[in-house]
Amino acid sequence: MSNQQTQQPVTASDGITSRAADYGQWYLDIVKRADLADHSSVRGCMVIKPHGYAIWEKLQRELDDRFKATGHVNAYFPLFIPLSMLAKEEEHAAGFAKECAVVTHYRLKTIDGKVTVDPESKLEEPLIVRPTSETIIWAQYKNWIQSYRDLPLLINQWANVVRWEMRTRLFLRTAEFLWQEGHTAHATESEAREEVSRMLAVYADVAENVMAVPVVRGHKTEGERFAGAIDTQCIEGMMQDGKALQMGTSHYLGQNFAKSADVKFLNKEGQLEYVHATSWGVSTRLVGALIMTHSDDNGLILPPKLAPIHVVIVPIYKTPEEQERTTAEAQAVAVELRAQGVAVKVDDREGMQPGAKYYEWERKGVPVRIEIGPRDLEKGSLCVVRRFVIEQDGESERDLRKRKKQFVPRAEAIAGMPELMQTLQRELLERARMMRDKRTRIIDTLDDYEAFFKGDGSGFAWVHWAGTHEDEDIIAKRFETSIRCLPFENQIPEAARGPGTCILTGQPSAQRVLMAKAY
Amino acid sequence: MSNQQTQQPVTASDGITSRAADYGQWYLDIVKRADLADHSSVRGCMVIKPHGYAIWEKLQRELDDRFKATGHVNAYFPLFIPLSMLAKEEEHAAGFAKECAVVTHYRLKTIDGKVTVDPESKLEEPLIVRPTSETIIWAQYKNWIQSYRDLPLLINQWANVVRWEMRTRLFLRTAEFLWQEGHTAHATESEAREEVSRMLAVYADVAENVMAVPVVRGHKTEGERFAGAIDTQCIEGMMQDGKALQMGTSHYLGQNFAKSADVKFLNKEGQLEYVHATSWGVSTRLVGALIMTHSDDNGLILPPKLAPIHVVIVPIYKTPEEQERTTAEAQAVAVELRAQGVAVKVDDREGMQPGAKYYEWERKGVPVRIEIGPRDLEKGSLCVVRRFVIEQDGESERDLRKRKKQFVPRAEAIAGMPELMQTLQRELLERARMMRDKRTRIIDTLDDYEAFFKGDGSGFAWVHWAGTHEDEDIIAKRFETSIRCLPFENQIPEAARGPGTCILTGQPSAQRVLMAKAY
Repeated sequence: MSNQQTQQPVTASDGITSRAADYGQWYLDIVKRADLADHSSVRGCMVIKPHGYAIWEKLQRELDDRFKATGHVNAYFPLFIPLSMLAKEEEHAAGFAKECAVVTHYRLKTIDGKVTVDPESKLEEPLIVRPTSETIIWAQYKNWIQSYRDLPLLINQWANVVRWEMRTRLFLRTAEFLWQEGHTAHATESEAREEVSRMLAVYADVAENVMAVPVVRGHKTEGERFAGAIDTQCIEGMMQDGKALQMGTSHYLGQNFAKSADVKFLNKEGQLEYVHATSWGVSTRLVGALIMTHSDDNGLILPPKLAPIHVVIVPIYKTPEEQERTTAEAQAVAVELRAQGVAVKVDDREGMQPGAKYYEWERKGVPVRIEIGPRDLEKGSLCVVRRFVIEQDGESERDLRKRKKQFVPRAEAIAGMPELMQTLQRELLERARMMRDKRTRIIDTLDDYEAFFKGDGSGFAWVHWAGTHEDEDIIAKRFETSIRCLPFENQIPEAARGPGTCILTGQPSAQRVLMAKAY
Repeated sequence: MSNQQTQQPVTASDGITSRAADYGQWYLDIVKRADLADHSSVRGCMVIKPHGYAIWEKLQRELDDRFKATGHVNAYFPLFIPLSMLAKEEEHAAGFAKECAVVTHYRLKTIDGKVTVDPESKLEEPLIVRPTSETIIWAQYKNWIQSYRDLPLLINQWANVVRWEMRTRLFLRTAEFLWQEGHTAHATESEAREEVSRMLAVYADVAENVMAVPVVRGHKTEGERFAGAIDTQCIEGMMQDGKALQMGTSHYLGQNFAKSADVKFLNKEGQLEYVHATSWGVSTRLVGALIMTHSDDNGLILPPKLAPIHVVIVPIYKTPEEQERTTAEAQAVAVELRAQGVAVKVDDREGMQPGAKYYEWERKGVPVRIEIGPRDLEKGSLCVVRRFVIEQDGESERDLRKRKKQFVPRAEAIAGMPELMQTLQRELLERARMMRDKRTRIIDTLDDYEAFFKGDGSGFAWVHWAGTHEDEDIIAKRFETSIRCLPFENQIPEAARGPGTCILTGQPSAQRVLMAKAY
């Protein structure tokens, strides 16, 4: 990548605050030091730098392939929504009213040598920069849907959206973000609800098997539902500070949008009916989830499936003759690895110490580094260094380092690389699961709940709940926690299944919910 | 595609105005009847429907692969540009001032039961929805570029942009459109100018070898340059009505943006210098170019490299038994074709006449149709129908139809399909070249010029020119023509090379320019 040279060499933790010292600052340091994103000159809007964007592109491809495999096609709808159109579905409009960027004029003018907005270019009707596209898309579906033969209509859009957030954080919450939004139309409620579940399963598959982030699936409570939805399903991941992150949502919208946009279809019996709608989306927020789940104090850690570079090769030398030989070997190894589908970068930059290169690629999350020195050439081996290993209890620093850095016969190292990538992918998920399980509790009393969540404490709590919306507010105020989801039954650990008693109200509860602090 | 069923069967030209009758209406009919795009509820903004978007996605992939192969990486910059930032480069701001969508507020409010813009949410500084991103990107580059080691910086962005056009036409000119914009930074003028040429060559390659649209490459005149550029290079295609369409531009921006954003770098000699900039872009307008170059009165014609479906197979039957056999054979042929990398759709919709299916897929531009009836099964042959053949002088309608529709032994038809796709790709370019050459003239007098362009007349005219900017206006007013480009020397037909005399002023001219009416 052309901008890699903008980095200055630093020691491992140089420029990165440790997680223990300040988790929030650590996150921002990773984003910055791994060259993922930057703040821009526009309040709340981020710049996604090439390394961050390359990860997003890989994630897009994984998602898009799955959308197409489940019968969806892509399309593109306008950026702007007329105010009156957004206002049609009242609940929806109310939900987004406080964060809408509004276009009111369409021309500039130079007045007294200063460029200003031309007051005469005021629009008859203000335009909202889409915060989500239900209203504009359903206005279109009205023209596209007449009969049951036109259903289901399965469309996805890749787009930018704007929600004028007051407190922003790179990737996690920004005024403008990139996302995909699926908008489907169905003849029946049951078909629409099946679609909602199908797409949530796609999201869970990508989270776990591509991002290596384990998730809990479930329904949102009434208060946390998407504005205008009848059911919102979600996947929730746990970050390393024990907080939950909502990673994707899939909504059953009932006939609300069909009614406000007047979209009816002629059913097989020849009667007019309103169409049933779903929508579902994930965004660049997932890059934030990726960082916060896997990375460490030395920088980013990427699952191989999302790593733009799988292996970086660094030639090591003292003399020009050694430089020539080790660099040639690095290139030769790169060619052989690429033939196996491995994405390789040879870092042969001159005037830079190997150590500085190691730190840079560690910071950027490259899964494997190969060091090639004159002695490796003689021995016919390669020094293969993993970006991480799962730490074992009681293991010495030295033993850990030995597992991380191994000298492997050349042919074996090359032939084994695809499998090593699979291993790293699997181990990352395993490590994240272990981390999550360690911070998950089954809690039955309010005292235990308080002990678990007091101060900076966080994690997942499986809790019986039978409270009202107001009771949720009480819990939220007192502990900064919320119901992350009403989980699908198979998502609850076996030991936590079955009915019980609400920790707040003492009322009977049919099954536990997932509670946590959240981003 | 799930929305294909929204089409009602029509006769070949049903719903499509002929080119001869009304070229402009024909274009809009194709866009509509081939399901490519729709007008939206927002003035000037289009909806790109799944079939149109699938073509754009293929085009994106072809372009993106070439950008990456020439060392570029993708990134993403904010949608909004603060007014003061846009105003910094004066010429640039002036060029876009008349078509800027302006965000002035960030919240809605319900007043007396009506959703309105909250007057208290007025932004301190208005934000411009990007018409292009030079200013916002160079504000960022200031932080990314310090030394010659950071150069060249080779970044591309895929994005939506907004230019508040008053007269819009689907794909060709819309208020919002999708595009890519490359923004590169270089240490020297010569490196930057090389980049400008390199990317123009990439565009010409995609135009000719992917879109099958022959183009003339050259420089824009001063009056037609991008606002803020020192040199604008372009590719110009000819549409079937003889008008030119600018299909892509590549700009050398000199140090203008580096100066207004104060981007300096430390050169190898340790001195501070301003950086040299380029930018280059193509947009969804290319889909318009594709339509207007190849399509006919029966609908869209697509080059195989951009066709989402290469082959559609239609089983033909009268009895349920025949239906079963021909449909099974259609599926079997599809499997064998897919194994060769051919994108196949089996159209086994029931209750629809084969003819209606033929017309639908013709309208949508599928390059090859295979019909399979009971007799084809018996004979072991397939009926292969091309979407087009190059018409030959004096050929009877019957002979032409025989070349278009052929019965080919099954194995041969399947094995030969990839080659047939290459043939169709090549023939489309050839046909477009012939069409262009037929409407191209070397013109030496104003009388001949007038005769060529009067009324609806158009085409490419190679003309000697030594006029001023004002003289260009005279020609534009009188004939509705403009200088499409000052061509690179190798772009001029041999017979038109060398010096001569300006047709308007009689002054000496070193080489001819390309004149035409244009979109």
